[in-house]
Amino acid sequence: MTTFAERAADNLVAVRKNKPLIHNITNYVVMNSTANTLLAMGASPVMAHAPNEVEQMVSYAGALVLNIGTLSDTWIDAMILAGKKATELDTPIVLDPVGSGATAYRTQTARKILDQARVSVLRGNASEIMSLHVADSKTKGVDSLHSVAEAESSAKALAKQLNATLAITGPADLITDGKRVALVKNGHPLMAMVTGTGCAATAVIGAFCAVDDDAYFATATALAFFGLAGEKAAQKASAPGSYQVALLDALFELTPEELRQGCKILEQ
Amino acid sequence: MTTFAERAADNLVAVRKNKPLIHNITNYVVMNSTANTLLAMGASPVMAHAPNEVEQMVSYAGALVLNIGTLSDTWIDAMILAGKKATELDTPIVLDPVGSGATAYRTQTARKILDQARVSVLRGNASEIMSLHVADSKTKGVDSLHSVAEAESSAKALAKQLNATLAITGPADLITDGKRVALVKNGHPLMAMVTGTGCAATAVIGAFCAVDDDAYFATATALAFFGLAGEKAAQKASAPGSYQVALLDALFELTPEELRQGCKILEQ
Amino acid sequence: MTTFAERAADNLVAVRKNKPLIHNITNYVVMNSTANTLLAMGASPVMAHAPNEVEQMVSYAGALVLNIGTLSDTWIDAMILAGKKATELDTPIVLDPVGSGATAYRTQTARKILDQARVSVLRGNASEIMSLHVADSKTKGVDSLHSVAEAESSAKALAKQLNATLAITGPADLITDGKRVALVKNGHPLMAMVTGTGCAATAVIGAFCAVDDDAYFATATALAFFGLAGEKAAQKASAPGSYQVALLDALFELTPEELRQGCKILEQ
Repeated sequence: MTTFAERAADNLVAVRKNKPLIHNITNYVVMNSTANTLLAMGASPVMAHAPNEVEQMVSYAGALVLNIGTLSDTWIDAMILAGKKATELDTPIVLDPVGSGATAYRTQTARKILDQARVSVLRGNASEIMSLHVADSKTKGVDSLHSVAEAESSAKALAKQLNATLAITGPADLITDGKRVALVKNGHPLMAMVTGTGCAATAVIGAFCAVDDDAYFATATALAFFGLAGEKAAQKASAPGSYQVALLDALFELTPEELRQGCKILEQ
Repeated sequence: MTTFAERAADNLVAVRKNKPLIHNITNYVVMNSTANTLLAMGASPVMAHAPNEVEQMVSYAGALVLNIGTLSDTWIDAMILAGKKATELDTPIVLDPVGSGATAYRTQTARKILDQARVSVLRGNASEIMSLHVADSKTKGVDSLHSVAEAESSAKALAKQLNATLAITGPADLITDGKRVALVKNGHPLMAMVTGTGCAATAVIGAFCAVDDDAYFATATALAFFGLAGEKAAQKASAPGSYQVALLDALFELTPEELRQGCKILEQ
Repeated sequence: MTTFAERAADNLVAVRKNKPLIHNITNYVVMNSTANTLLAMGASPVMAHAPNEVEQMVSYAGALVLNIGTLSDTWIDAMILAGKKATELDTPIVLDPVGSGATAYRTQTARKILDQARVSVLRGNASEIMSLHVADSKTKGVDSLHSVAEAESSAKALAKQLNATLAITGPADLITDGKRVALVKNGHPLMAMVTGTGCAATAVIGAFCAVDDDAYFATATALAFFGLAGEKAAQKASAPGSYQVALLDALFELTPEELRQGCKILEQ
């Protein structure tokens, strides 16, 4: 049996070798940084949101990443169309329910996507994920009010209910598919000082899902890789502007061997 | 009576302590840099523009920032909806009339927002601000044709007429609420070589308005803070790419004490 | 007869002196980086896409840059309106058919723009350009499957057919107006690791077209300038995050004399 650390290294090698096309329908704020994240790590990003073309575009993709950070009705239509096509093609879908729980519109949209497409992985902070489970959850903007610990028990139940892998990210990341639970302890506090690092993490999960059929393993190893890059960046920079630059550099420079050694995934 | 310098330092402390949520309906070009500006200085940004959710989102916010840099009709609808809700809730609104005067569409939109919402602060370059006052003003794209000096007399009159604080930014920034007039002499020429620094300044004003009830003081101290960060960045970088990085770093690193000492606000 | 090298230097001087306004209707991913590219090199960018204002905005511009990287129907309408107005005003139009060939929607849109506006320059990778010529071409996402060599013969024919200058960029860039053919050998592999460098190259061509009436010369010299900035950046940075920063710095710092000496344009 391969360990998490070996699987992480293997997945990184596979991404860099295969350069999977990752189709993103994501928010305006992070389009550039998400594309650069995917390019730097070795994947091939494409952004396309027109209902006229998303079905054709997703048919070339190794994974579909849906992110509801800046919504409008036509974008939701595009997400549903692309999501259905990806479901039909058995292409993994990763959903980032940004701000779910903060407004009814976002919560409803996240639920609609979950209903109409076969989402493999759902990544968010604790309050976003819990908003899809607990009816009265409150979120402050797009930031999290709940701790990972609070969310753990409901996460397993929600993962079973949705038949998906959940990734609740925070100081430590909790990953569960309803049966298995892992904690990823890689990462650095400065990551939260740069906009779009959560969205970038979601895209990195997409790239790993394109090369690893088990979404639980793909998600945990992707978050370890992204978190370790964040640790490496913190050796070079201590403020958000230079940290953002160093993070992209680290995603490019981090070797499979470094990942194998630095990966901190603990199965519960 | 607190001086401007003390008030500037106090406002910065308050932003970093309270981390006010700033709701931005802004242009595509600067969404990422605006979010990073707010995060770096210690505030909490959210971007949301769907008419379906802006009223709910703005109800959580400490300030609403409206920016017309890349308009379309549905965005105007969202701005008006959010603006009316913010007015009702007495949440400060900061308007950046990007390119007003350059096209009739932008001038009309800026006026429409001013008519339908209670705008606390209006920040732009001289020709943008004057386009809202003088009928035959011409703007070259989104850049300014008028000097701060030219604009000063009409600024006071316009501020009275609109019952708002105006901030006309340029080599020196002029702030007036129709009675009081201040000049902010912080800043650096390289700021004009990075796209979106004007829009970022507007967002910084939003963050200061969320912690200071007097929009005139909030605006002057916000621009001193932003300008001083620009000066600090120029000690580290002399070309636009690295300057943009250094500016984000400076917004994060600048201490209240440095601001108290470096703040250059002169009341006229 | 001025050489390419002298013309390149002269064009750079002219851009920095005249600061031509470049009107971009471009994709969400690269709006910020495109604006920063134009600012850093000395031009004046504006982004505007509302059908309500594009005709007025383009009337101020020295060039119009159209980029189909993230399409939707209303944006196509705006591109056509702006394109027709620019044609009427004899303002040069540069088209970047991002992903043409990848989806029918993009190919059709690129053809529609070519039909309804007088495009001066068409810049893309080999498969994008060939998709507008060869019916059965396939593109992997927005990346290129064809080599510059493969594309050369059809490029000349296509340029004649479209009565436009084509720029097929890759490890070397091929420029042809159907009669003349030039190769630009400036550039660096790291440019492909940063999102939007192709789109930035297109905008740089727009800026050079605003100061040089011969689109063939404007295009070749613009790509030499951009490529040489890429070489200069590679002396400072070896990973994508810091490379992106160094590239903007180089666009600002590169002197006309350096360009005259470093320019590698070979007429075939």
